[in-house]
Amino acid sequence: MKACSFTIGMPEWYAPFCREQNPDDLRSEAERLAFTVELSRRNVETGSGGPFGAAIFCNHTHKLLAAGVNLVTPHTTSLAHAECVSIGIAQQSLGQHDLSAGGGDYTLYCSAQPCIMCFGAIWWSGIRRVVCAARAEDVESLTGFFEGPVPQGWEQLLAERSPLPAVEVRWGSPALRENARSVLKAYKDSGAPIYNAGA
Amino acid sequence: MKACSFTIGMPEWYAPFCREQNPDDLRSEAERLAFTVELSRRNVETGSGGPFGAAIFCNHTHKLLAAGVNLVTPHTTSLAHAECVSIGIAQQSLGQHDLSAGGGDYTLYCSAQPCIMCFGAIWWSGIRRVVCAARAEDVESLTGFFEGPVPQGWEQLLAERSPLPAVEVRWGSPALRENARSVLKAYKDSGAPIYNAGA
Repeated sequence: MKACSFTIGMPEWYAPFCREQNPDDLRSEAERLAFTVELSRRNVETGSGGPFGAAIFCNHTHKLLAAGVNLVTPHTTSLAHAECVSIGIAQQSLGQHDLSAGGGDYTLYCSAQPCIMCFGAIWWSGIRRVVCAARAEDVESLTGFFEGPVPQGWEQLLAERSPLPAVEVRWGSPALRENARSVLKAYKDSGAPIYNAGA
Repeated sequence: MKACSFTIGMPEWYAPFCREQNPDDLRSEAERLAFTVELSRRNVETGSGGPFGAAIFCNHTHKLLAAGVNLVTPHTTSLAHAECVSIGIAQQSLGQHDLSAGGGDYTLYCSAQPCIMCFGAIWWSGIRRVVCAARAEDVESLTGFFEGPVPQGWEQLLAERSPLPAVEVRWGSPALRENARSVLKAYKDSGAPIYNAGA
């Protein structure tokens, strides 16, 4: 009998982390992005995966729909990037493969700029806005993880997506970028694996 | 309590389908690609998802490691493209996020050219070869599904991937392409949903 399913789930620290951080009560975009960077930090501190976090918040209620962290090594699949984890959980929890269906209006917060796979996952997800903290050059220079061949002008491609609705891309403050960079550095300094496939 | 995991599993017809098709005994690349197109056809005929199939075979033993079909609508996640389903199952069944680790040498067969997300998923998967039946223009013209902003020269990008090892991309015969096109047409003719996010 061939294997025929796979599952990706958040680490055990996630539920108490949410009780501690109250993500449904974050009043600003900066606070929601800071929460997302904190997810990445907790993932590094607990050794539960790579230095990346993602979180999907409703643009109307500002409540958290779903979060993700990088779980590539513990869940043994390269699909388990933070953005994809949050998208999969968000869509299955709502029971819709398109987060924009029925007037859905969600922002994906990312502790770092999406890689080529996550850029593609965002494309089909129905997410309407993306907000990032660290830049691709931060990821690649501070950790040695690669972003892959993300198209030149990827933000513009999302903004001008047609015939699909536009996806807006924004960046957090320099302070939040520096915060996210400190998580990347902490991961690298910990000696944890940099696991680009086949490298 | 926020939702915190997601699961993607092959449809119930998959186990009997494997017993019927004997994928571990396919002696040629053409037979393995034909099996992959047959996966996509069965998925359409049973109404269990979109008209796409994928299968990962070992290049040494020629045995099937894992297969995928498009399960976006039944599993309510846009991550459930055939290629990603097969990659997730393959990696978790082996317990390694990099299919090339430990000398692993696998080919991903695709009933149709990968979209932007699956191109990115292949990039990190550790797969060493990709073989496709239908072309992007077949998918877009026959069904109305989009491929997204797959980079110009994507085959070359994989072939010249650096510093990661090269990924070879090949195409099946015109007959297999036509076979895959017939599945795309059958899906469109069935009136089943063309579910590009937000369209």
